[in-house]
Amino acid sequence: MKRKLRVAQIGCGFMGRAHANAYHQVTGAFDPPIEPSLEVICATDAARAQAFARRWGFASHSTSWREVVARDDIDLVDICVPNNLHAEIALAAAESGKAILCEKPLAMNVAQGREMVAAVEKAGVASLVSFNYRRVPAVTLAKQLIDEGRLGRVFHYRAQFLQDWTISPDLPQGGSAAWRLDASVAGSGVTGDLLAHCIDTALWQNGPITRVNAMTETFIKQRMHAVTGCEEPVRIDDACVFFCRFENGSLGNFESTRYARGHKALFTFEINGEHASIRWDLHDLHRLEWSDHGDEGAVRGWRSIHVTDGSGDHPYMDHWWVPGLAVGYGATFVHQLSDFLSAIHEGRSCSPTFREALETQKVCEAVLQSADAGQWVDIDTA
Amino acid sequence: MKRKLRVAQIGCGFMGRAHANAYHQVTGAFDPPIEPSLEVICATDAARAQAFARRWGFASHSTSWREVVARDDIDLVDICVPNNLHAEIALAAAESGKAILCEKPLAMNVAQGREMVAAVEKAGVASLVSFNYRRVPAVTLAKQLIDEGRLGRVFHYRAQFLQDWTISPDLPQGGSAAWRLDASVAGSGVTGDLLAHCIDTALWQNGPITRVNAMTETFIKQRMHAVTGCEEPVRIDDACVFFCRFENGSLGNFESTRYARGHKALFTFEINGEHASIRWDLHDLHRLEWSDHGDEGAVRGWRSIHVTDGSGDHPYMDHWWVPGLAVGYGATFVHQLSDFLSAIHEGRSCSPTFREALETQKVCEAVLQSADAGQWVDIDTA
Amino acid sequence: MKRKLRVAQIGCGFMGRAHANAYHQVTGAFDPPIEPSLEVICATDAARAQAFARRWGFASHSTSWREVVARDDIDLVDICVPNNLHAEIALAAAESGKAILCEKPLAMNVAQGREMVAAVEKAGVASLVSFNYRRVPAVTLAKQLIDEGRLGRVFHYRAQFLQDWTISPDLPQGGSAAWRLDASVAGSGVTGDLLAHCIDTALWQNGPITRVNAMTETFIKQRMHAVTGCEEPVRIDDACVFFCRFENGSLGNFESTRYARGHKALFTFEINGEHASIRWDLHDLHRLEWSDHGDEGAVRGWRSIHVTDGSGDHPYMDHWWVPGLAVGYGATFVHQLSDFLSAIHEGRSCSPTFREALETQKVCEAVLQSADAGQWVDIDTA
Amino acid sequence: MKRKLRVAQIGCGFMGRAHANAYHQVTGAFDPPIEPSLEVICATDAARAQAFARRWGFASHSTSWREVVARDDIDLVDICVPNNLHAEIALAAAESGKAILCEKPLAMNVAQGREMVAAVEKAGVASLVSFNYRRVPAVTLAKQLIDEGRLGRVFHYRAQFLQDWTISPDLPQGGSAAWRLDASVAGSGVTGDLLAHCIDTALWQNGPITRVNAMTETFIKQRMHAVTGCEEPVRIDDACVFFCRFENGSLGNFESTRYARGHKALFTFEINGEHASIRWDLHDLHRLEWSDHGDEGAVRGWRSIHVTDGSGDHPYMDHWWVPGLAVGYGATFVHQLSDFLSAIHEGRSCSPTFREALETQKVCEAVLQSADAGQWVDIDTA
Repeated sequence: MKRKLRVAQIGCGFMGRAHANAYHQVTGAFDPPIEPSLEVICATDAARAQAFARRWGFASHSTSWREVVARDDIDLVDICVPNNLHAEIALAAAESGKAILCEKPLAMNVAQGREMVAAVEKAGVASLVSFNYRRVPAVTLAKQLIDEGRLGRVFHYRAQFLQDWTISPDLPQGGSAAWRLDASVAGSGVTGDLLAHCIDTALWQNGPITRVNAMTETFIKQRMHAVTGCEEPVRIDDACVFFCRFENGSLGNFESTRYARGHKALFTFEINGEHASIRWDLHDLHRLEWSDHGDEGAVRGWRSIHVTDGSGDHPYMDHWWVPGLAVGYGATFVHQLSDFLSAIHEGRSCSPTFREALETQKVCEAVLQSADAGQWVDIDTA
Repeated sequence: MKRKLRVAQIGCGFMGRAHANAYHQVTGAFDPPIEPSLEVICATDAARAQAFARRWGFASHSTSWREVVARDDIDLVDICVPNNLHAEIALAAAESGKAILCEKPLAMNVAQGREMVAAVEKAGVASLVSFNYRRVPAVTLAKQLIDEGRLGRVFHYRAQFLQDWTISPDLPQGGSAAWRLDASVAGSGVTGDLLAHCIDTALWQNGPITRVNAMTETFIKQRMHAVTGCEEPVRIDDACVFFCRFENGSLGNFESTRYARGHKALFTFEINGEHASIRWDLHDLHRLEWSDHGDEGAVRGWRSIHVTDGSGDHPYMDHWWVPGLAVGYGATFVHQLSDFLSAIHEGRSCSPTFREALETQKVCEAVLQSADAGQWVDIDTA
Repeated sequence: MKRKLRVAQIGCGFMGRAHANAYHQVTGAFDPPIEPSLEVICATDAARAQAFARRWGFASHSTSWREVVARDDIDLVDICVPNNLHAEIALAAAESGKAILCEKPLAMNVAQGREMVAAVEKAGVASLVSFNYRRVPAVTLAKQLIDEGRLGRVFHYRAQFLQDWTISPDLPQGGSAAWRLDASVAGSGVTGDLLAHCIDTALWQNGPITRVNAMTETFIKQRMHAVTGCEEPVRIDDACVFFCRFENGSLGNFESTRYARGHKALFTFEINGEHASIRWDLHDLHRLEWSDHGDEGAVRGWRSIHVTDGSGDHPYMDHWWVPGLAVGYGATFVHQLSDFLSAIHEGRSCSPTFREALETQKVCEAVLQSADAGQWVDIDTA
Repeated sequence: MKRKLRVAQIGCGFMGRAHANAYHQVTGAFDPPIEPSLEVICATDAARAQAFARRWGFASHSTSWREVVARDDIDLVDICVPNNLHAEIALAAAESGKAILCEKPLAMNVAQGREMVAAVEKAGVASLVSFNYRRVPAVTLAKQLIDEGRLGRVFHYRAQFLQDWTISPDLPQGGSAAWRLDASVAGSGVTGDLLAHCIDTALWQNGPITRVNAMTETFIKQRMHAVTGCEEPVRIDDACVFFCRFENGSLGNFESTRYARGHKALFTFEINGEHASIRWDLHDLHRLEWSDHGDEGAVRGWRSIHVTDGSGDHPYMDHWWVPGLAVGYGATFVHQLSDFLSAIHEGRSCSPTFREALETQKVCEAVLQSADAGQWVDIDTA
């Protein structure tokens, strides 16, 4: 019998479902060395927590994350709540010696993030921040190609995350459905929600960013607040564009918005190196575009790699179907959970750790500062 | 507490994994009225069955499907074994009054298929044949658009299923890895394995086929047999092309092969109607291509629908993520299981039933006869 | 000064414009050894001929092709009239010792085609049939890749030519706008008009076809005839599907229709070889898709070659712009004219000659016979 | 007989060929009210000028643009030389009362541009700057859709122009082949060469830009100079990224580079409006992507419009082939020439005039200033 990892999941919104689903899939698909056991789901609303527990097979439910985090029979605290609660829960979980899986972004700001890093490192607990897109097989493959040095000197890194779901002025801010529009809960708008993904991937693939120069905009200045019932100023960034310098000399260009009509969740990145270029697009997440200048001229062209092969060719795909049959968004959480379970089993940390996620937080914060100040801001890499 | 549906799964190969995974996902994602309980996994090799049971959470394992099917504490028999065993197991399961989920194709031939239909109908048990591609959300959406009459008179139906995994002459036939190349186990080659999917979808979307005219080929005439260890003639069809007439007056063109270099599992269909056309491609299964002649001329063009919206727009997608985030191949089995559980709960049958699958079997058999005879063959629609 | 080639062009419809445009572009773009001089345009309607002459820079116009063909001061007769006139004009031109550029298809039927071949070969005049798609740079590149043996053994050849312009029952048949629907003028429907292109390309790329098996359909059985003013039976094939055997052992699958809603002129081909596959699509004529199994597994994928490079990489493209800037449909006629001018200059024949075009005619005729008879028909390769 | 427009073309490089080709095509394809007559080609190298004259049908050649511009028998001066000569030639031509067709960018800088605008406006001569991409049919169609108000409030404008032809450090700067790398001849690097196109299109489609913030880079700092034979510092911008504000409140994001491996000439733009979005890509210039939020949810998706229809649906396409058959890069020069000939005939100016091109020049200059200063720069819209 495998060792059980007793899980307390805090939060049962959209991310809560994605995590719960992964607990159900990981054992069969990945045969990890330890097996999650769903002990308790925690949410503010008792009825909702109970219904979630029944549906997703948690043994119990609770409305107090403090009690849950303090329990002796919990090994892992999985934080799926809005951003403004990450720090407090993580600090308590670290103090209780629990392993921590925390949704992104790490924190509301860098100061909070530093505290969290200090806490997990002092406690010596395993930590993972859920930048799940790293574990799309095509994205992981891109990282492998980069690490093998196939790109040569990198000239450009480009990323965008475009959505269109907040264009209507009738959409409220705040509450469980629209907390991402409420700055006091979300911390920021597209920068923390969407660009954080782009930045995490970029730092991982292309190394540190040293300086940023940004512009933000809030297109709809007032929205009804779902909690107060009043029209209130919107304090998040609806859109953010920035360019930057990477330590390796390459130029970065990043953009995110929730006002790009026709794009549901278009996260793309492109890297242009001396020898080769890579592109990826979340809307076709199972493909990686690859252009290799080493190919013979007559037949040189962008290759569309259908990242569905096992046999060691494509990351994670040995565990799924046969070539040609893709996995979806949900699999990224299974992959990260599988990697985290292995890490916990071996007493290793698992990337991206809190410390790594803090670097993303620094860039996000610098981006917002730059947009406010209208000038370049250096990243504090210390 | 929900009622439990006690499951005996026969077979733990590739299809076995896809089914087992669906049992783990269906409750959380779909909240069906009854809940599967994984009682027993059955396979010829005891060690393999045991390992599978442990990994996928089956309560027990067995090497005798006969014993399993006869058990009183089983409600559903799930047949995931090679084609030559479908009939025998299904007949026994029907006799024991079990609901039956059977992998496709239904049978080795029409005669067997007729027996199976008679058995389940006599026993009055629920049946479903796993033509899982019907439940790709984009494919289900296509069916809805057709049923709403949006295409008008249909002129053409075109489908292909192209793979490239058997090009090497060093690939053996037979055994657990390559039983699909052994005619005595598989019944046929691409016709029963791949075209059966195309035909099932076509009959469902476009109505009965009345006549077929086919050509088949076996490119590699001899292969080592994994069981006998000898070079033996290959008796399956490596490739099959056929055209046909549908009852509604449209022309069909179908092709399948395992010798299409570069295509992993390219199942596509296209339907051309008077008012609109539809295309789909398994390699990008989350998209549906739609061309509507009613669109204004200046901005008319093929629409690429990213079939990931909930809110009633896209079938099954209310149960998954948010717009822009796709599901993969595995979800098709979750969808069919969810639908089957609802049907069982309500005492309804679930499409495609054994009877519907028999119609596909008839077309497959006629295709092979036509290729042998080199002439048109009528489909017996009685 | 370059030698002048004195041109008489017969016909000023759509093809007439494409040819006239090529005469204007070829000298600048290709610097051919001899230079076309536009002596006379010939058409039934004098006013139309005159307007065309003025617009396109022909020195004179005529309503009698017989007179024009007999003139001493003409070197090349360019036949751009409907199919039923090809033979008569070509026979007269050959007898007068003129070089002949003839629009496709060669003739109304094989018997006519044989006469035409005999005539040009007896007269020893240069001939070219305008299967212009051979000279799309991407298509020419495909031929080069095949000739270099990069595909290995070929398993499959697939082509289609899909249009949607005749779906309306209000479209008349006959007359200058719709002669392609009038069997007495066009000879056949999609088979001679569209499949002839597919077949020419296929024979050129993949060698002789030995047997065909076809199905045709006329969806709209009666149309008003623009000349007679009466409803008359439609005697052309609106759609045609056939499969076939090539001499090299590969299987062919061809389809054409004018009832594929949403497709304007979708000519595609795909060739699957042991080592590599090729695809092309007229709607994106500047691209060639290439899948090479020799590529390393992790980064193997279909390459989209943007066929716009000079420097010897891409056929004809040294004569145009810079990489990334595509040529269009019109360029195919420039390329064929440039090649023909070089051939005439060197006293060579230019492919596809009348003799080569006759092979296409034979396949077309066999396809129509097969569809009539409902059975396989062998191609007479003598 | 049509009135002749007597043309003197200055320059016979790549742009010279594109212009000469257009003179040959325009009359047949567009039947303009006046007809170009190729009087003289002018180039520094007499032999090259002579060869060009013979090949492209100019009546004479010259090595002195001053003499040519002063001739009484010239109506139009067509400036196809490197950027550093535009102003001087244009000023002389204006003074001689000639119509002027000038290659882009207008000038080396804003000061020069202002002089040129003053000169043509004082002289009252017709002027056109060759921002030819406006007249890609798909781009013109995009402008029509915008002008019809179909986008509603615009939130985002995004453009890029990516190439990869200067990555090799062995490429020299200067001389006839590489003058675009020599700042004293080209004025700037990608900003004036490539971003100028993006900016012209953006101003035309989306109105004035008010502020810019830019970053540039020169990746290869030294290159051999083809004229001096010495290694010299490279003073052009190899890459440029900028974001900006438009007067209409939308955000702009622009990027250009010649170091994007795998991209030959990837000019793209995308506009996100409240109701609809538009995308275009020079690599598939015959397509326009259109996403209309007004479409019904179930079948909403990006439409790929194949911009090849006549009948008034697609700009310029009535003059070419039939639906499905695309034009290429060369056609953009034919379209602009046709429009210019009509304007000259009617005594109208033709967009983009020198005055309009000056606005683009201002943005380019501000972009370079911003990159130097590392801060926002306002556009002087006076």
